[in-house]
Amino acid sequence: MASPKTNDWRFRLHEIIYESNTPAGKAFDVGLLFAIFASIIVVMLDSVERINNHHGKLFKILEWIFTGLFTIEYILRLISIRRPIKYVFSLLGIIDLIALIPTYLGFFFIGAQSLVVFRALRLLRVFRVFKLGSFLTEINFLTTALKGSVRKISIFLLTVLTLTVILGSVMYLVEKRENGFSNIPESIYWAIVTITTVGYGDISPITPMGKFVASVVMLTGYAIIAVPTGIITHDLAIAARNRKELPESCPSCSSEGHDTDALFCKYCGSSLYR
Amino acid sequence: MASPKTNDWRFRLHEIIYESNTPAGKAFDVGLLFAIFASIIVVMLDSVERINNHHGKLFKILEWIFTGLFTIEYILRLISIRRPIKYVFSLLGIIDLIALIPTYLGFFFIGAQSLVVFRALRLLRVFRVFKLGSFLTEINFLTTALKGSVRKISIFLLTVLTLTVILGSVMYLVEKRENGFSNIPESIYWAIVTITTVGYGDISPITPMGKFVASVVMLTGYAIIAVPTGIITHDLAIAARNRKELPESCPSCSSEGHDTDALFCKYCGSSLYR
Amino acid sequence: MASPKTNDWRFRLHEIIYESNTPAGKAFDVGLLFAIFASIIVVMLDSVERINNHHGKLFKILEWIFTGLFTIEYILRLISIRRPIKYVFSLLGIIDLIALIPTYLGFFFIGAQSLVVFRALRLLRVFRVFKLGSFLTEINFLTTALKGSVRKISIFLLTVLTLTVILGSVMYLVEKRENGFSNIPESIYWAIVTITTVGYGDISPITPMGKFVASVVMLTGYAIIAVPTGIITHDLAIAARNRKELPESCPSCSSEGHDTDALFCKYCGSSLYR
Amino acid sequence: MASPKTNDWRFRLHEIIYESNTPAGKAFDVGLLFAIFASIIVVMLDSVERINNHHGKLFKILEWIFTGLFTIEYILRLISIRRPIKYVFSLLGIIDLIALIPTYLGFFFIGAQSLVVFRALRLLRVFRVFKLGSFLTEINFLTTALKGSVRKISIFLLTVLTLTVILGSVMYLVEKRENGFSNIPESIYWAIVTITTVGYGDISPITPMGKFVASVVMLTGYAIIAVPTGIITHDLAIAARNRKELPESCPSCSSEGHDTDALFCKYCGSSLYR
Repeated sequence: MASPKTNDWRFRLHEIIYESNTPAGKAFDVGLLFAIFASIIVVMLDSVERINNHHGKLFKILEWIFTGLFTIEYILRLISIRRPIKYVFSLLGIIDLIALIPTYLGFFFIGAQSLVVFRALRLLRVFRVFKLGSFLTEINFLTTALKGSVRKISIFLLTVLTLTVILGSVMYLVEKRENGFSNIPESIYWAIVTITTVGYGDISPITPMGKFVASVVMLTGYAIIAVPTGIITHDLAIAARNRKELPESCPSCSSEGHDTDALFCKYCGSSLYR
Repeated sequence: MASPKTNDWRFRLHEIIYESNTPAGKAFDVGLLFAIFASIIVVMLDSVERINNHHGKLFKILEWIFTGLFTIEYILRLISIRRPIKYVFSLLGIIDLIALIPTYLGFFFIGAQSLVVFRALRLLRVFRVFKLGSFLTEINFLTTALKGSVRKISIFLLTVLTLTVILGSVMYLVEKRENGFSNIPESIYWAIVTITTVGYGDISPITPMGKFVASVVMLTGYAIIAVPTGIITHDLAIAARNRKELPESCPSCSSEGHDTDALFCKYCGSSLYR
Repeated sequence: MASPKTNDWRFRLHEIIYESNTPAGKAFDVGLLFAIFASIIVVMLDSVERINNHHGKLFKILEWIFTGLFTIEYILRLISIRRPIKYVFSLLGIIDLIALIPTYLGFFFIGAQSLVVFRALRLLRVFRVFKLGSFLTEINFLTTALKGSVRKISIFLLTVLTLTVILGSVMYLVEKRENGFSNIPESIYWAIVTITTVGYGDISPITPMGKFVASVVMLTGYAIIAVPTGIITHDLAIAARNRKELPESCPSCSSEGHDTDALFCKYCGSSLYR
Repeated sequence: MASPKTNDWRFRLHEIIYESNTPAGKAFDVGLLFAIFASIIVVMLDSVERINNHHGKLFKILEWIFTGLFTIEYILRLISIRRPIKYVFSLLGIIDLIALIPTYLGFFFIGAQSLVVFRALRLLRVFRVFKLGSFLTEINFLTTALKGSVRKISIFLLTVLTLTVILGSVMYLVEKRENGFSNIPESIYWAIVTITTVGYGDISPITPMGKFVASVVMLTGYAIIAVPTGIITHDLAIAARNRKELPESCPSCSSEGHDTDALFCKYCGSSLYR
């Protein structure tokens, strides 16, 4: 992006690895995404006992190949960036490291290798790649709107959590240990399962009184799910309006609120675009 | 629709089979819909062991009758259309063929006949028939709005899928094989069951730590279900606004987007209603 | 409501039974509501085996008392209305009759009495009573908005049903009889349980392929639940706007779309309220 | 807040305990919140049998310490407020008392101590503390919007309850006792579990007819969940609009509700901005 000194190989490397507006950069990103997908599928299949029994050795080799590739990628990222320390402690940098370590740790600690499942976190790079092209606007729009909702959604989740603590405690008194509500944390877990309408059925009320309380919890959950929806719908509408209204205020009388396609100020008549 | 040469039998056939604005065309469509319904009900009942034991022979005959009728319909469709190849490879054309093949395949491959359940896909013709008359506007309105949402909903589903892969992998580490989370794909299946608030309960967390992670998954699912709703509500509102603004364009400079109550064009000043 | 001939006892009776704007009418409505509630609670408790064993006789007597009261009410309704036949065949009239018959039928057919549960339908009278006073506006507003949504929601439900037939049929092929998907109607039932995110878990996929198809069904259900929400939110907004805009069109130039509190027409300047 | 006589220790105490705009008041509030959290976690852990067996004595002591602290707090609240009786019968006052009593009751009635779980209600104080600072606006906004929805949501819940009574009664007739629908209240509980899409699966239909009725219940629940969402979204939008329009009232005739971009009062013609 910045004006480059094209004779610098480090700059070129940076362009390929961190940027995506050159053919090589795009190819690198797409290739990386494929490698991430493939490595995750290997981890997945490796966890299936039946498949592991037959192809365990192959998976071991593949895992080392992917770990090797990602290690090389990690080193290249370190040397091609101006301030490597900043990358190391960035979210993506930490995730990239977490995806590497478990395989190496497997040498020293038995079982440490199973932490390789955290490689799934690298999937988040999908969004970096998708950000290119036509999805960018939509992603920006959604994140802007959702950022505006974060506070209200937090208040909502806090209320729901308080409710589940109270309702779970009540249910513990009502249903007793014998019916599966063996302690308060367990009862709170039940309240969360119920209020979110998940309803596993691993714990469910047995006494008539318990069923009554459960009905209240369910109807509450059913009614309040409307709240986050209302909040997000509302904030999407606001985000949409702001996106449109952004560039409009009369340059001569500084009045606002003109139609998005107006050419002249509707209050003082001077041109909106000098 | 186009001005016809009424002496052409092929044109007439086309009008009956493909169009619905003549009495014969309407009758054909409604009759076809009934045949599709009846054939699907036969397939359904045939799958019920108890009924099959008693009326198996009758169902076999009925299936052949329907297959025969649909074969004739398919041939008529082929000869009455100008470019048969286009129909054959259209979505509805492929579905029409899929509804026929299994019965014939039953001669050569045992069990192939059970593929006749795909005849249910023909139900999609319902929407072609309903498109007539007063439902047309509503269907058009909904499809326009939903088309606008497709991209945003895709981003949302991609995020949810990434989340389920990550959360499923974490759960596999937390709960271990003994508790039903026998491998990562299975754990991801559990994460999908949980985050969508379906909650079968065939796999559910047993350890306290697992229940804690599950609670986080549930509350996440409960909170983010608001996102697609917000998106669709928002796009319905936009589709509705666009629908209204459609017929307003200045008759002299053909600019669009005037306020719904404007009397004069805001760009050229001429009256909007001559 | 209409100007009465107060010397007519039939008119008075009509006023008490059918209207609610006199003290006697209000008292009758509230009393009736209590009787309905009490009679339903008797039916409910009577169905509980343990309670029935102890108080069965008492419940039998109470049931006859309520049936007697409702029979008198029904006869009074018939004689106090001008066109009894219209009441008999109205929705509320039919429900009122259904609430009576089972007790009498119990004489002739054993078990017919259990149909008395349909007395619960009389609960719908709650809304007639609540319509009075301040809830009227809200109820009217909601019903107007929902009427506008009925068509779109029907199209949505039709789509969902078509989807469940197709997905259920596919699942029947994938999971086979041994895994609980014993026939196509059963599989469709499973698809409905899943797509609506109810998820009993009485039938759930067992094979990996089945779990994959189930995941698709769940994510579909999770994403499309947004559609009816969007529709209803949208129609509520329209209903709200219309409510406001209703009384406004200029009496001299018949232009529309004035602000709800405008006094003068903004196009021709004449007073909006002559 | 009011102009204080700072030499009064009672006033100072009041400021610390009831207000939060002084450093001491803030510290008190945060400290109290921590004490509430800690006391609830003690109650929770105490209910877990395994932990209770090891640390039962410690928990008993901690419970008495917290009860002591809350008792002191309660007494300080009583003496520092002008009208103690008003606090005693306020919602927070009652909850504060409920959090104390069970421990003392444990002396006289065995088991009364388990009522200490109601201490969880004190968590509601979280919102008093959060009301400070930047969350205040959001909380106010949400509560204003939701207050406007209460009536409509009540009508909705009443409709849902009526539906569940009717559908539950029907299901009781259809499925019979043998299949888990052992009485009408139980069937209504099932209807609530189903219509709210919780779906425990502890009771689920077994006969084909029952499965059909259940499908209707599920699709109903799936479609009507949209109603409260629509209501709340709508009322949020209205609350947002009102918030914006608040400061606009004509300075000469004090009429309200002018367009956001109006320059002159539309009722008296004087400038809105002097």
